[in-house]
Amino acid sequence: MEKFLRVDMNELQVSYEEVPEKYQKVGGRSLIAKLLLDEVVPTCDALGPHNKLIVATGLLAGTSVSSAGRISVGAKSPLTGGIKESNAGGITANRLAQMGVKALVIEGLPKGDDWYIVVINDQGCKLVPAEAYVGMGTYEFCTKIREDYSDAAVTCIGPAGEKLYNAAGVATIDREGWPSRYSGRGGMGAVMGSKKIKAIVVEGKGRVSFANEEKFKDALKEYTAIVKDAPSTAAYKDYGTPSMVRIVDALGGLPVNNFSNGSFDRVDDISAETLNDVITRRGGKTSHACMAGCVIACSNVYVDEEGETIVSPLEYETIGLMGSNLGISDFDVIAKLNYLCNDIGLDTIETGAAIAVAMESGVAAFGDGEAALKMVEEMRQGTVLGRVLGAGTAVTGKVFGVRNVPVVKGQAMAAYDPRALKGMGVTYATSAMGADHTAGPTGKAKVDHSSPDGAADLSLTLQKKIPVYDCTGLCMFTIGSIGAHPQVIIDLLNSRFGWDLNVDWLNEMSLETLKDEYRFNELAGFTKLSHRLPEAFTERELPNLGTVFDVPDEDIDQMMKYS
Amino acid sequence: MEKFLRVDMNELQVSYEEVPEKYQKVGGRSLIAKLLLDEVVPTCDALGPHNKLIVATGLLAGTSVSSAGRISVGAKSPLTGGIKESNAGGITANRLAQMGVKALVIEGLPKGDDWYIVVINDQGCKLVPAEAYVGMGTYEFCTKIREDYSDAAVTCIGPAGEKLYNAAGVATIDREGWPSRYSGRGGMGAVMGSKKIKAIVVEGKGRVSFANEEKFKDALKEYTAIVKDAPSTAAYKDYGTPSMVRIVDALGGLPVNNFSNGSFDRVDDISAETLNDVITRRGGKTSHACMAGCVIACSNVYVDEEGETIVSPLEYETIGLMGSNLGISDFDVIAKLNYLCNDIGLDTIETGAAIAVAMESGVAAFGDGEAALKMVEEMRQGTVLGRVLGAGTAVTGKVFGVRNVPVVKGQAMAAYDPRALKGMGVTYATSAMGADHTAGPTGKAKVDHSSPDGAADLSLTLQKKIPVYDCTGLCMFTIGSIGAHPQVIIDLLNSRFGWDLNVDWLNEMSLETLKDEYRFNELAGFTKLSHRLPEAFTERELPNLGTVFDVPDEDIDQMMKYS
Repeated sequence: MEKFLRVDMNELQVSYEEVPEKYQKVGGRSLIAKLLLDEVVPTCDALGPHNKLIVATGLLAGTSVSSAGRISVGAKSPLTGGIKESNAGGITANRLAQMGVKALVIEGLPKGDDWYIVVINDQGCKLVPAEAYVGMGTYEFCTKIREDYSDAAVTCIGPAGEKLYNAAGVATIDREGWPSRYSGRGGMGAVMGSKKIKAIVVEGKGRVSFANEEKFKDALKEYTAIVKDAPSTAAYKDYGTPSMVRIVDALGGLPVNNFSNGSFDRVDDISAETLNDVITRRGGKTSHACMAGCVIACSNVYVDEEGETIVSPLEYETIGLMGSNLGISDFDVIAKLNYLCNDIGLDTIETGAAIAVAMESGVAAFGDGEAALKMVEEMRQGTVLGRVLGAGTAVTGKVFGVRNVPVVKGQAMAAYDPRALKGMGVTYATSAMGADHTAGPTGKAKVDHSSPDGAADLSLTLQKKIPVYDCTGLCMFTIGSIGAHPQVIIDLLNSRFGWDLNVDWLNEMSLETLKDEYRFNELAGFTKLSHRLPEAFTERELPNLGTVFDVPDEDIDQMMKYS
Repeated sequence: MEKFLRVDMNELQVSYEEVPEKYQKVGGRSLIAKLLLDEVVPTCDALGPHNKLIVATGLLAGTSVSSAGRISVGAKSPLTGGIKESNAGGITANRLAQMGVKALVIEGLPKGDDWYIVVINDQGCKLVPAEAYVGMGTYEFCTKIREDYSDAAVTCIGPAGEKLYNAAGVATIDREGWPSRYSGRGGMGAVMGSKKIKAIVVEGKGRVSFANEEKFKDALKEYTAIVKDAPSTAAYKDYGTPSMVRIVDALGGLPVNNFSNGSFDRVDDISAETLNDVITRRGGKTSHACMAGCVIACSNVYVDEEGETIVSPLEYETIGLMGSNLGISDFDVIAKLNYLCNDIGLDTIETGAAIAVAMESGVAAFGDGEAALKMVEEMRQGTVLGRVLGAGTAVTGKVFGVRNVPVVKGQAMAAYDPRALKGMGVTYATSAMGADHTAGPTGKAKVDHSSPDGAADLSLTLQKKIPVYDCTGLCMFTIGSIGAHPQVIIDLLNSRFGWDLNVDWLNEMSLETLKDEYRFNELAGFTKLSHRLPEAFTERELPNLGTVFDVPDEDIDQMMKYS
């Protein structure tokens, strides 16, 4: 059976531990919620010794189930002050599971100023000095570290995490070794940095065991067929997440110039169609898999005129937050901004939102790509402006005296204006995760997104669905395919572990995860007043629609009864 | 009878209003608590249109009662997110009361970018354009404005308030016309700045009426004798607040180098005795009254070698926060820092604490006075560093990744380390005002300050006493004299207004004020978890004493039952 790997940074010791019964049937986000609730005092300083950074695999990690290798990184968030889990693709989760590690629990703070790398291989786990790598961007770091640990899976932080930026994420490499799979949100990179861990390196390879391998293979065959043949899969493969650019612009909710408009006059320049045209013409890839065996392959490889990779992938949230929200419509600039964020170790959502707030205050003009690139470089250097932006959107607003700050619980909104997509606004308002679209993504629902009616119900329905995926390690882009076949997920789990679950368990576990997370935040001091959008969205009209976020507080408070 | 003066910045209109019954028997802080609770939505954006700035006189303002002319400035605080009242001496409150104004209630936000001055004279009140004065330091501004409005009382903001800094205070001039009487705490200057009010100018002079002037004169005679002859008055007159330097250092709680120590090796250089020696030798004043008729005259006038005034007054909190807490022991530097803060419109406590946090992060070395002066000048200029410091200590800590940040509810602690003075720590933790020493100043109590036993009771006792003074407009330095003679205060009130109060009313009103304030914060989202000190004080030992702040949470929660 998989084990917990405890990394005690107070004593610089590592130890393996049997997984207690109560944690066996949960993985990823759901495991993180339980561990944090049980082991971390919710009021603690997120960058202090009492917080724990948990790197967890999903229940189906390490198998050959397509799209099941998401890695979950969680801790109390220095950005929101509440619980946080942020998951990403890449190759680390599968490798961890194959090495028998269900989750790393990184505890305490080292006494000195030295940095460490956690290396996991056939001999076990050890802490290795990392001084040689401090300050290094993630691309150079991952290249160098894989010279010493060939073919290793790597999950790491960049200079942003080392500097304890709230906007710092945790990067995981894809099959090419690119550190571009981001557990970006909530400042997990800062928590990792506070513990002086530059990287987690999984050197060894193993194989997971199965309670009933034949049954697993049968279920896998069924699963693969369903996911592979689904129309949603084809759409993701063809256009990936950038397909949302036109959809959200048409709904009037694409963030433009710090959420001052929801419709972008240059939307054609940043659409998925244009993106594919550019990529195809230059010889990049319009479809790409971030983890082995993924049949969706929603990713892309954006290249320059010479065919050299600028960044992979270039996704919707980045196009929204670092494109239209900065008034920038040049894919080359957006791709460079994305590359820089990946290299420095930054969440593109938080960074884009923060730069837009700085632009609104006059630090630079909207549309000035060079200025945006320079600001991101300043984040690497740690200039005062760079540090302000690194502290996140809310702090940037306070420093520059800007009132239009798109945050909930201290975290920046994703690329859906809540005045146009009311359901998403409810997700922002109520999720324990802050303004996080992945917690309850309503964007594709067939509803009148501009109406407050039913917005809370829609958000809640989706919020209850998502933990199924975040717990099993499945990419949420399988919702459109496997979502209608929950028994297949259950068959995979039962045959992998010898369990006897039925489909109801999925919903029960999901609800339990939401309750655990909500409880953590309650103990951290959150109240129903934490579930509100700022006046900049409830009172300032979105000019293109003439609407504000007007879902009644009562609807929001009513839905929080799931806690 | 006195009236409310409503200043509607939405419509740029002013109006006088009869004072409703429920507000008649409260003034200053107590009036502010009631008005904010009744008229301001506690969850509103503190710098938005729904907040109100209230400038209130105490009940005894405008009379010749010594030390009764404190001016209270209040609003929802952009720094703490809760209720705030900050009072100061100077000449405005008496003049407002004499002009028949009990309080100004400044509402809304102007639509344009123009700035205004509120002018009150015999003809009433008007809003006057202030464009000519924008960006001006408070000293130059007050000099200029008194050329146009001769002998006027002035309450104003400096560039800090114009820039919406959380550390911005509101300055009121003293008898010399110096804008050095600060309603410094909680960012009231930013609220005034958000409403585009550069200043309140009281041009006219009047006289308050008395229900029974003979009785008032009798009570006044008794009051004056008591205050004048008290030992506490003599102590304040001789040494003023700087006498606390040695006292608090001896208790081991003087903040040194960002609260990293509580005992200053150069305490002799910054003691009250040294201060008086320097002032006397150079021809300054060791005693000075900030308002007409004050028999305490605790203030001083600090001059340079040529006898030219650098700043008046130089007080304990500034010596602690901008002296020892920055590792600076040169009175000339501390006085210059104080002058600059006054001129820019900054709270010296919040500013000193923020600079110390920046110094801990390595922005400058502790003890580097030139660097500190330059940082304050950057606040005037609005450089990015200046803006960070202006956003306050908590934001500065976030930007620079410093964990040792001396704040409660987002506001910097005054110059008493709570690990050495446990009662003061309870005041910091529990006051609705954030870490504000004036809300329950335990420093002079005859107790073992380092013991957690009884600390909560001591703080509560003092917290209940203080509103008596903040409501009547009396300086709290009369506690040591008139505190033992509450009937005299009642006699003054009854004869002034024709009331029939008894001494119990003082305690009832005080408790009601605390409850009003606590209720406002509760509605703003505060919970009992808001009443905690940071880990930097509950877990990090004060090296000189080897103690942490260890008053049990239960003691703190128990005392909050007054709400």
